[in-house]
Amino acid sequence: MAKFMDVHSGFIGVTGQQLAEAHGRDLAIEGDEGVHFETAWMDPVAGKVFCLATGPNREAVMRIHERAGHGTAEIYEITVEV
Amino acid sequence: MAKFMDVHSGFIGVTGQQLAEAHGRDLAIEGDEGVHFETAWMDPVAGKVFCLATGPNREAVMRIHERAGHGTAEIYEITVEV
Repeated sequence: MAKFMDVHSGFIGVTGQQLAEAHGRDLAIEGDEGVHFETAWMDPVAGKVFCLATGPNREAVMRIHERAGHGTAEIYEITVEV
Repeated sequence: MAKFMDVHSGFIGVTGQQLAEAHGRDLAIEGDEGVHFETAWMDPVAGKVFCLATGPNREAVMRIHERAGHGTAEIYEITVEV
């Protein structure tokens, strides 16, 4: 199982409730790909969301986000954590 | 106290030990600005580091990273976490 950080842009002005709903759509289907989304951090002024996940590979994370309606190509595999 | 995610680029091929040393240089001086660096996640293939911190403001986080030798202008204030 690998760890990933993905980055979403364009979330300018998104509320906490909207982010929770978007995250909930990931959680509802993540098991289909063996993915788990742990935490999402948002800066709604810059419109950035950082999402930490575990899963079998980058493509699995990407597919869940796409199906949940917020795909991103910017997914980094985290191999070092301090 | 606010929360920040900062992003560093150019860490291609950096080892876990090197990241731990860089992070240690932050930890050694973070108290000067009332900042605390919680976790740093690295993708050494893409050369990206994501660093979660708390502190009084963005500039304080920036100053500690600059003094530690790895400044970045890409610092996001996190106001929503799910």
